[in-house]
Amino acid sequence: MSTSTKTIGSSDLIARLAKDSSVHFSSISPLEYRYKEKRLLPFLSEEAFIWYKAMVETGIVRAFADRGIVPQNSAREIERSAALVNAKEVYEEEDKTNHDIVALVNKIKERMSEDSKSSVHKAATSFDTIDTANTLRYRDAFYEVILPDSAKYLRAMIRVAKDNYDTLQIGRSHLQYGEPITFGFSQALFVDRFGGRMLKMKEAADSLVGKFSGAMGAYNAQSLFVPDPITFEKEVLRQVGAVPADISSQIVQPEFVGDLVHFCIGAHGVLANWADDMRNLMRPEIAEIWLPRGKDVSLSSTMAHKRNPVGFENIKSLWKENMPKMITMYLDQISEGARDLTNSASQRFTPEIFDIFDYAVTRAIRVAENLKAEPENMLRNLSMSKNVITAEPLQLLIASQGSPTAHGDINKLSDRALKENRSVVSLALEDPELSRYMSQLRKDQIDTLSNPEKYIGEAKKVALAIAEKWEKRLAELAF
Amino acid sequence: MSTSTKTIGSSDLIARLAKDSSVHFSSISPLEYRYKEKRLLPFLSEEAFIWYKAMVETGIVRAFADRGIVPQNSAREIERSAALVNAKEVYEEEDKTNHDIVALVNKIKERMSEDSKSSVHKAATSFDTIDTANTLRYRDAFYEVILPDSAKYLRAMIRVAKDNYDTLQIGRSHLQYGEPITFGFSQALFVDRFGGRMLKMKEAADSLVGKFSGAMGAYNAQSLFVPDPITFEKEVLRQVGAVPADISSQIVQPEFVGDLVHFCIGAHGVLANWADDMRNLMRPEIAEIWLPRGKDVSLSSTMAHKRNPVGFENIKSLWKENMPKMITMYLDQISEGARDLTNSASQRFTPEIFDIFDYAVTRAIRVAENLKAEPENMLRNLSMSKNVITAEPLQLLIASQGSPTAHGDINKLSDRALKENRSVVSLALEDPELSRYMSQLRKDQIDTLSNPEKYIGEAKKVALAIAEKWEKRLAELAF
Amino acid sequence: MSTSTKTIGSSDLIARLAKDSSVHFSSISPLEYRYKEKRLLPFLSEEAFIWYKAMVETGIVRAFADRGIVPQNSAREIERSAALVNAKEVYEEEDKTNHDIVALVNKIKERMSEDSKSSVHKAATSFDTIDTANTLRYRDAFYEVILPDSAKYLRAMIRVAKDNYDTLQIGRSHLQYGEPITFGFSQALFVDRFGGRMLKMKEAADSLVGKFSGAMGAYNAQSLFVPDPITFEKEVLRQVGAVPADISSQIVQPEFVGDLVHFCIGAHGVLANWADDMRNLMRPEIAEIWLPRGKDVSLSSTMAHKRNPVGFENIKSLWKENMPKMITMYLDQISEGARDLTNSASQRFTPEIFDIFDYAVTRAIRVAENLKAEPENMLRNLSMSKNVITAEPLQLLIASQGSPTAHGDINKLSDRALKENRSVVSLALEDPELSRYMSQLRKDQIDTLSNPEKYIGEAKKVALAIAEKWEKRLAELAF
Amino acid sequence: MSTSTKTIGSSDLIARLAKDSSVHFSSISPLEYRYKEKRLLPFLSEEAFIWYKAMVETGIVRAFADRGIVPQNSAREIERSAALVNAKEVYEEEDKTNHDIVALVNKIKERMSEDSKSSVHKAATSFDTIDTANTLRYRDAFYEVILPDSAKYLRAMIRVAKDNYDTLQIGRSHLQYGEPITFGFSQALFVDRFGGRMLKMKEAADSLVGKFSGAMGAYNAQSLFVPDPITFEKEVLRQVGAVPADISSQIVQPEFVGDLVHFCIGAHGVLANWADDMRNLMRPEIAEIWLPRGKDVSLSSTMAHKRNPVGFENIKSLWKENMPKMITMYLDQISEGARDLTNSASQRFTPEIFDIFDYAVTRAIRVAENLKAEPENMLRNLSMSKNVITAEPLQLLIASQGSPTAHGDINKLSDRALKENRSVVSLALEDPELSRYMSQLRKDQIDTLSNPEKYIGEAKKVALAIAEKWEKRLAELAF
Repeated sequence: MSTSTKTIGSSDLIARLAKDSSVHFSSISPLEYRYKEKRLLPFLSEEAFIWYKAMVETGIVRAFADRGIVPQNSAREIERSAALVNAKEVYEEEDKTNHDIVALVNKIKERMSEDSKSSVHKAATSFDTIDTANTLRYRDAFYEVILPDSAKYLRAMIRVAKDNYDTLQIGRSHLQYGEPITFGFSQALFVDRFGGRMLKMKEAADSLVGKFSGAMGAYNAQSLFVPDPITFEKEVLRQVGAVPADISSQIVQPEFVGDLVHFCIGAHGVLANWADDMRNLMRPEIAEIWLPRGKDVSLSSTMAHKRNPVGFENIKSLWKENMPKMITMYLDQISEGARDLTNSASQRFTPEIFDIFDYAVTRAIRVAENLKAEPENMLRNLSMSKNVITAEPLQLLIASQGSPTAHGDINKLSDRALKENRSVVSLALEDPELSRYMSQLRKDQIDTLSNPEKYIGEAKKVALAIAEKWEKRLAELAF
Repeated sequence: MSTSTKTIGSSDLIARLAKDSSVHFSSISPLEYRYKEKRLLPFLSEEAFIWYKAMVETGIVRAFADRGIVPQNSAREIERSAALVNAKEVYEEEDKTNHDIVALVNKIKERMSEDSKSSVHKAATSFDTIDTANTLRYRDAFYEVILPDSAKYLRAMIRVAKDNYDTLQIGRSHLQYGEPITFGFSQALFVDRFGGRMLKMKEAADSLVGKFSGAMGAYNAQSLFVPDPITFEKEVLRQVGAVPADISSQIVQPEFVGDLVHFCIGAHGVLANWADDMRNLMRPEIAEIWLPRGKDVSLSSTMAHKRNPVGFENIKSLWKENMPKMITMYLDQISEGARDLTNSASQRFTPEIFDIFDYAVTRAIRVAENLKAEPENMLRNLSMSKNVITAEPLQLLIASQGSPTAHGDINKLSDRALKENRSVVSLALEDPELSRYMSQLRKDQIDTLSNPEKYIGEAKKVALAIAEKWEKRLAELAF
Repeated sequence: MSTSTKTIGSSDLIARLAKDSSVHFSSISPLEYRYKEKRLLPFLSEEAFIWYKAMVETGIVRAFADRGIVPQNSAREIERSAALVNAKEVYEEEDKTNHDIVALVNKIKERMSEDSKSSVHKAATSFDTIDTANTLRYRDAFYEVILPDSAKYLRAMIRVAKDNYDTLQIGRSHLQYGEPITFGFSQALFVDRFGGRMLKMKEAADSLVGKFSGAMGAYNAQSLFVPDPITFEKEVLRQVGAVPADISSQIVQPEFVGDLVHFCIGAHGVLANWADDMRNLMRPEIAEIWLPRGKDVSLSSTMAHKRNPVGFENIKSLWKENMPKMITMYLDQISEGARDLTNSASQRFTPEIFDIFDYAVTRAIRVAENLKAEPENMLRNLSMSKNVITAEPLQLLIASQGSPTAHGDINKLSDRALKENRSVVSLALEDPELSRYMSQLRKDQIDTLSNPEKYIGEAKKVALAIAEKWEKRLAELAF
Repeated sequence: MSTSTKTIGSSDLIARLAKDSSVHFSSISPLEYRYKEKRLLPFLSEEAFIWYKAMVETGIVRAFADRGIVPQNSAREIERSAALVNAKEVYEEEDKTNHDIVALVNKIKERMSEDSKSSVHKAATSFDTIDTANTLRYRDAFYEVILPDSAKYLRAMIRVAKDNYDTLQIGRSHLQYGEPITFGFSQALFVDRFGGRMLKMKEAADSLVGKFSGAMGAYNAQSLFVPDPITFEKEVLRQVGAVPADISSQIVQPEFVGDLVHFCIGAHGVLANWADDMRNLMRPEIAEIWLPRGKDVSLSSTMAHKRNPVGFENIKSLWKENMPKMITMYLDQISEGARDLTNSASQRFTPEIFDIFDYAVTRAIRVAENLKAEPENMLRNLSMSKNVITAEPLQLLIASQGSPTAHGDINKLSDRALKENRSVVSLALEDPELSRYMSQLRKDQIDTLSNPEKYIGEAKKVALAIAEKWEKRLAELAF
């Protein structure tokens, strides 16, 4: 998919906007001065949007020319002209015409010969151009930047999972100590969840559709010029590397972009969960992970021991901004008749969602690449509960030997263990009643009971299996 | 999938709850007295939830018995006991134990022999049971009720699209007259959008997973009893017709249920769009569709001509209630460590989403089955713009003949046409300048210009093609 | 306000529904079997809603009777009949009439004499009754249950703040150690924030309005019977203890209930913040507060040291469910013409918001009443940073004595202090360069530097002042 | 309030940014190239934010100087330096220091004498500066731009209500014909609702607070320098025209800005409702209002009769984007400890909400000022139902004369009226049974029945009363 989806000729724009060093402090949106991912400008900026719309207009004329309905010469002219159009002049024209696509078409025509002008925007409605352009630029943004960035984060996390596949850590539930796991296992969960969302984002980007079906979606105007407008729509879209849906109205069905946003927000949600977990592990009382000072761990001007986890905080905070935007997507599912335009302004904000997400991913990559476990602290915390941590397996094993009172007995022993700072297992071995059951346990069972660090189930194995699974997937995807 | 996913033995519960005639007026939730879909009670009621949890507990013991780790006799005992457990007694027990699963397990044990009791909930953590039970009941709810209901709506809509594939209607955009289409074409769009969501719901239901990986997801407890807990998890889940994810924590990854809810809300969004469109078509000034008085078109006590579209209004209003619940799903993506329980109460409300959606679908079925087009009124509205409706094709065709001033010329003629109540095409034929271009048009082009009802592009063809596409899909799905 | 707002005669209903012991396990909504606050049933249940609507119908007839337009006898009859109406019979009637208010009116008429029947619902439109009834029952629910419960929580929190006004605690920002405060101070912030929301809820409840302005809000029908319908509307509403807005349509302006929900959700948000803070203070590594085992701290079946903060988790989780419902309120601001009914079903769910909030408050009361600080653990955590905690004041004071390099110097000393486990202040006193500035400090300044526990600013004073402020306000409110 | 709230010296910035003509097409956010309200830049742009923060820093030093704690000379120096700081240099500095406020303070110090540098940011924490600056700029934005714009919209709407106080229109409910009203009455409802929200926005802007209570809110650092830091906080804030809350943490209580956003979104909701109503009145089948072509009614390139209501569509569409942002405000209520910074990035987006709202208001002003009723079309639509429109009063009056069967009788007559295209009232006068009751009616009642245009209740009176009420309020507010 990735090659065929590439839109024709965007390299100039990519080069130009990639060099763009403007940061706009007279801006209101923090995207412009603080959270802008410049590599996305060739797809998500207004300049880029106009470029993509011009490319769609080019594709339309080309398809007509290939059918012999307009001269090939017109196709060559629009190709040259469309490449020169810029946002500033289009907006100045819109100020006169009060119509964005009429303005674009006028500026394209301006640099064309009188004879060729009538070929431009032939039989098209504004949203044939706009929705197709959005499909192209969103897909390009995902294939060129967002999915590769997501893959990079996944790789960094796979590294963390593998490096720490056997680093002992106390698992937590309810923010309380649970049972031992490994740090790599806990990170593998994020690998799998984020990887899953990444694949869904890719599928949703692949499913985006364009249209050339006219103002009502019924090919009214198109049918004046070609006898087979449904086939012709495919030819137009093939020119720009897109496909149509089976039916559209004045606009493409809103569910396709909606799904892309849903999976994107879901991926951001996984990052937010990870960021929350990690900054809690950086509490001074816990201190199980370490990050270098810098952009993601800010200094305190005065307190030397303070390690403010600003990288993680930022990822979470951007999720708070991004997540509610799904509501707008749901609202835009509703548009009366062939469409009522109340999705117009709201839809212009969709690129913000992708930019904010990618900014968060980029930050997550840097943090994940720098993140180190603090195995000694993990052991210290684990050992805080070592005397009772095996109460669970102890009870399970004694019960399995037939003790009807295992639960109550072990609970009492646990209380004693905490008070006397002794291991609950050694107390059980001394207990006249319980020792009877203890003696029936297998050697490896006794071994687990005596060494909580062995009570980690399949944590190591799962950590490695998940790492391997996603290494393989990433290799297949070739991001 | 549908047969293998069927949970063992739910027929009793289905029968019992299906007969449930209770409507609770001392309820606060309108679900209980107004918007309850009774056929969903065997899956989504609290009674059903407890039944499903008991079934999962049964499956666990069975899998242990098949491995020879607990006696087959225990499996038989729990099977009998679990089938007898009811919600009331479990809640009374929870009041003592302050733990829902401990309460359930206690009640299951109560009816079992002393020897078998220790086999119950062996090596399990509460959410092995809870999340697996949710997976089963949600999937059953979709396969038994929600997807069949969705298919029924789709069939009703396919009927509307086919019956009206050639019923002329003026298309609308911006709430203004656009170009002619057919009523069947406009309905086919909803067929395709809703059908698409239905398939996605099915996929998401099929993707739901269970777990038997213990309190941390690392199989800690399980590894005490079996050497291969990852394989054993599959055996446990196979007992109840489920599969695990590649990795879980104390809970299953929240994204799976989140996707199901997303597609469900998206499907409700399509219904809401349709409901809005239809009730606008019922305005007295428009009057393009008709519904019989009754539950969906309420009487006015006094004004005989009033046809209040309460069915459509209700579908839309329930969407307003349902849609924001996606926010809760996104919030529940974030849970610290193996999990922090702040998803517990919120997750208990998820069945409401499915019930509200299904109630809306059920209402949409009834409305769609009763809905009739008013072709005369559609023609009347269409003819209101007939004098100028062909200004668009006229301009396009004249321009294609080389007129450099087609746009301005036709705009002026359109103004005259409106003032003089004459057809813009006849004015063009009289115009000395324009008649030159007119004479070069093909006969079929002139024909279209003179008969706006022929300017409908491929509306008929698309309406029929979409109907056929979904008839085929529905036949494959066998809902 | 509180006396005049009391609706006539609700004591019977309160008594009856307060005794209601039904818990509906065939329910789908968790409100019915798990999170129902029974004391709210006399206001928020469907049975209560119908009772309130019947009371409004009574008020209308009474006002007409007081004007001499209908016989006083009719007023007495409807009073008796309305008190007997129940939800079940009204719903059965609605099943025939397809109209909820027609059904209610029919059932009221059924027990009245033939002559009096025509007085019922005179000149009224359905939503004169419905919106006025909602105003009355919401206000009653707040005055009788929700505001008193909120006040009770506030009192419990005032107790915590006062009891601990001087209990030393390390303040935290970024989840990192900040500067010393007192536990009472940190709780006082929640007192002030929650108290603020409580007052706003009260104001919003006081601002709720009713209406008797007819189907368009223009008093069309009313003007047939009285020459001054605007004045008459006030008389009708005075009968039930309400006031009108200056203008309404078929419905009351949606902003009034919207504000009440906003402040309610904001109050829940404060509880959610508190719950998050508290359950983090219960982490085993922090352990700064203590709660008894029971309904709010669940046992773990096996691990004796585990204290699962289920009360706090529940408060937060219910907020996740409740908070997004504000979106529905915003959506219901939009209703076409005199109104389009798409707010009908959605509006029926509003009572759920109030119930969920009150359930959370009730739980918060119990937790706050049981909550105890663990002063020793607070000191332990405070002392973990005691060697460097005064780096901030040290730097500030030295800088204020003119040192141009205070910041860098103290940062270096802090690093040494952490490494050598010595106090940064003693190192500064030894430093030849810095000692020069140290000697210029006042005695009380040196004292603060040497005793971090004195570096708490006005924490004690503010804690007590906030407690006093809200004790006074609560006394004035007399909840 | 408006004078005392005015922040010192912002005139330069206002002048500079007001002249700003930059439109950034390399932007991602549509705020920057399409929906930017330039008059808000002096308050809501990043350049402005830094200016406001510098002003707060100035205020702090001034307050210290007034106490004699730092030399007056330092206060004069910072005043000069702070006015020169610009965003670009601060961001470059932040790139080195990784801390926005440290960067700002460094740039302020850079232009000050060595001796004065230590006075800058004395005893302050970053959010003393940031939250106070936000309070100032938000309040200024509302007082200088948003509230005056809102007042202007209100004035335009008052004009519409007054000009049309007696313009007959058929009222609508369920999108169906209801009873007659006047167009001015329907607009007066929007006047009252929007006016109400405007007053609430003003109150919320007045309630915004600042802080100078240090990193924990307990005045730790402040207490080193002054004996009465609570009083001193007031002095600092008085320097910049603000007041503190009774208690803060590292940040001000989030509820104050949250309320402002709530009322702002509520006001936008009223606009969205109005925009929906108006564009429905522009349907060709209804055609009850008129707007000139131009920026708010776009041309169709081809169909002369098309009047696309793009102004109204835009107002609604921006609401879809804006409204869900309230969720972010609710999420930001939750911040652990003195605060956890996860509100940092999200809070930077708050100005977008105000800008989008103001853009919508500005557009609504233009539309309201140009909007004209089409009284003939209103009469045409009204007359469509004239034969049965008085069925309601007819039935009410006959019933009040004692007819037990009024409802059924009139319903039958209405059916006949519709079929025979006669007035239901004339049929009643002919009816032997009904004529008996008819003869008992008062002359004015008969008059109303015969002239539906008289059945408008108090529509005219209310329209004028609401207009007068808000004219008076606006005069008091002096916006």
